[in-house]
Amino acid sequence: MTTPNASPFAHLLDGPCYAVIFSSQRSAGHDDDGYAEAADRMVELAAAQPGFLGVESARGADGFGITVSYWASEEAIAAWRRHAEHAAAREQGRSRWYTAFELRVARVERAYGSGRP
Amino acid sequence: MTTPNASPFAHLLDGPCYAVIFSSQRSAGHDDDGYAEAADRMVELAAAQPGFLGVESARGADGFGITVSYWASEEAIAAWRRHAEHAAAREQGRSRWYTAFELRVARVERAYGSGRP
Repeated sequence: MTTPNASPFAHLLDGPCYAVIFSSQRSAGHDDDGYAEAADRMVELAAAQPGFLGVESARGADGFGITVSYWASEEAIAAWRRHAEHAAAREQGRSRWYTAFELRVARVERAYGSGRP
Repeated sequence: MTTPNASPFAHLLDGPCYAVIFSSQRSAGHDDDGYAEAADRMVELAAAQPGFLGVESARGADGFGITVSYWASEEAIAAWRRHAEHAAAREQGRSRWYTAFELRVARVERAYGSGRP
């Protein structure tokens, strides 16, 4: 992360919102192999895309992680998917960094949290 | 988890599906305070509910975690929310285990993963 002390929570505004839920298992041994730098770069790049609303991410010591990014529209997700640098990073993910992953795109129907109704 | 060696991935079938995305920050110090046992129990209990499809969970060393559970319908989510033991655990979460949390309910529009199209 470029802002390591910022809140890990995504703060969404009212309005339509889509979640991209990406779960992944890091390769055994967790050799970094450029992973951490690329992951930081992807967060930085995603945050600069039109329609990006926020991101949350967690990974345990077992190497299993979940990243959820939030977007204003399906079009914003599609545009980010087409981004050349993102596509190249996905390819590295498939071939080197992850042994398996799942990706789900979902439309947020409602949201609440601590400190809010 | 009652099955610690099972795959951490949820394997969803075709058909309608809803995701409950729960992100949380564990209290400082991460005193267990009954948390691990209760978390295991909630997964076991959720898995026994009608309409439960699967769950994925990750928490980093910083105490920030994401759990995504998948359900066949909004009704299944509502019934799980009303479950008395779940409601009691949520109250413990608010008062003792988490400093903050966010919950989003989302309808899964599409899904894919490694090894599948």
